[in-house]
Amino acid sequence: MDARVTPPAPLDLNDWIAAQLDRVERALNQWVSVDASADMEHHAPADLMAAMRYAVLDGGKRLRPLLVLAAFEAVSSGLTDDYLPVEEWDEEIARRGAADPDAAGFMSGEAALRTACAVELIHAYSLVHDDMPCMDNDVLRRGKPTVHVQFGEASALLAGDALQALAFELLTPEGTQIEPIKQAHLCRLLARAAGCAGMAGGQAIDLASVGLQLSEDQLREMHRLKTGALLQASVMMGAACGEPTPATQAALQAFGAAIGLAFQVVDDILDVTADSSTLGKTAGKDAEQDKPTYVSLMGLARARTYAQTLHGQALSALARTGLADTRILRGLAAMVVERSN
Amino acid sequence: MDARVTPPAPLDLNDWIAAQLDRVERALNQWVSVDASADMEHHAPADLMAAMRYAVLDGGKRLRPLLVLAAFEAVSSGLTDDYLPVEEWDEEIARRGAADPDAAGFMSGEAALRTACAVELIHAYSLVHDDMPCMDNDVLRRGKPTVHVQFGEASALLAGDALQALAFELLTPEGTQIEPIKQAHLCRLLARAAGCAGMAGGQAIDLASVGLQLSEDQLREMHRLKTGALLQASVMMGAACGEPTPATQAALQAFGAAIGLAFQVVDDILDVTADSSTLGKTAGKDAEQDKPTYVSLMGLARARTYAQTLHGQALSALARTGLADTRILRGLAAMVVERSN
Repeated sequence: MDARVTPPAPLDLNDWIAAQLDRVERALNQWVSVDASADMEHHAPADLMAAMRYAVLDGGKRLRPLLVLAAFEAVSSGLTDDYLPVEEWDEEIARRGAADPDAAGFMSGEAALRTACAVELIHAYSLVHDDMPCMDNDVLRRGKPTVHVQFGEASALLAGDALQALAFELLTPEGTQIEPIKQAHLCRLLARAAGCAGMAGGQAIDLASVGLQLSEDQLREMHRLKTGALLQASVMMGAACGEPTPATQAALQAFGAAIGLAFQVVDDILDVTADSSTLGKTAGKDAEQDKPTYVSLMGLARARTYAQTLHGQALSALARTGLADTRILRGLAAMVVERSN
Repeated sequence: MDARVTPPAPLDLNDWIAAQLDRVERALNQWVSVDASADMEHHAPADLMAAMRYAVLDGGKRLRPLLVLAAFEAVSSGLTDDYLPVEEWDEEIARRGAADPDAAGFMSGEAALRTACAVELIHAYSLVHDDMPCMDNDVLRRGKPTVHVQFGEASALLAGDALQALAFELLTPEGTQIEPIKQAHLCRLLARAAGCAGMAGGQAIDLASVGLQLSEDQLREMHRLKTGALLQASVMMGAACGEPTPATQAALQAFGAAIGLAFQVVDDILDVTADSSTLGKTAGKDAEQDKPTYVSLMGLARARTYAQTLHGQALSALARTGLADTRILRGLAAMVVERSN
């Protein structure tokens, strides 16, 4: 059997997604493991790693990794003709020799796959902490008991903390041809998107908004930080693994902002219209917790229209990227708006 | 008044410490602030930032930042003849021009100060999470109510998360002359020291060890990760801001390991022998929580002897560094062993 996974031409979105999800799952499975720390003096304790793996593996739509990989492909079409499974990288690097200039495409692919996984680790840690009793106190996530229900609160807290650190470790591999300037840039983008002026900041505003009547501007600002920052960063970081022009970067930033917001509007709609088994998490939590949402603010019909408007903004931003092939990014944008969970 | 802070010759340890603490406090005060995110599209929400500042400012011995700065000075003596207060950096960079090669010393100093603060942010976040009810459930830290007592559990959780992200943001500044290869290397060292095979891993072992009888080897492994990894990383990261030889690096690594472990042995001794007001945190918690410690394992007298042995190991490691002046590192090692809080 040929070990190379040759992705199909990116015309069939479902095939592309299936191939990328396979790569991401393999890579996460390899990198979130006790073995991954085998080159270090110390290993992660097995029970902490078990909680981390439970939080990350076998679940989730992997929207953020897909956005990373799609943005990378869009800015660097032609580079990624074939992919090696992550388990065979060491062998391939040894074969090509560390200084082989032909390894560039393969290595850009490494940066993108590491970035895809790093962004997912940040997302996964945020869900672990968000589900804890002192936050949303949720017991169901991706159809399974939440991490603190399964492993206890202290382990959930530590697993989340360790996942955040691991994200930055993934972005700064030693003995790789990923240029240090890219490693540093990716860390910068991720740290900003995850931190106090990004995701964590948005969660703090969310927390402070329970029971309050927010204006549409305030609600938008909250979601731009809470969900939008990391979704937008996924697009920007994927692009940064290639060599986008400033104009392309700016257009992709607008694209990321639009789908980031659309994602949250749809989330608010689904919280009202879907049931828990479809969602894989407890439905109706927003109203129960008296949280301001797009639905509570503008009603279901206007919220749906708003999601379509944002979808349109995302598509026109894509048209401004100047990129030859944005079909996958268009497909992912449609997925965000039309998803049912 | 001349705004330049000229540090005294490093003969007087107390003067050196006072000057460095002043630099670190100013820098933390500037970087852990809403203003620091002013160049970004979004600001950190004020209440989250208040909890972050409460966790970081006006407290702590700043041992880790001092180790960073001392290690940096030791490997690069001569480079750091004068220091600018952090508030004046932008002006200074503008004055010199971004490409001024004479800025190298100043810029290495920037890397070291950023590193000192980044390590302290990781330490501060770990204390915030460690004090939470689901972990040690402590109400007193540095003589003040703990963050979750003051701001609530959810804010404490988020403030800790955001502090971790901010640490990596500090290490990857944009528009600076800190070489990307250094930025990436520093991120790698910090992520490893903070993560599942470092501090978070050690805390997980600690958590799983309550009520158990550990062997001396097991106890040492736990503390190597829980406290030792970050203390050792402080030394290694400080050195990495300069250009240490591999031999110097190896010796400093051994130094960091020895004082990291000594720190914990002394911690265990102080938990038994000091009172809460001296410690600034609740004394006697280890025995109360039935945690294995060096004192419970080997008794007070042997624990004291062990701390002295480790001190000796640290000093002989320093002697192997080949560095001209290690007086400050020697002084900090003595401080670690002889401290009363």
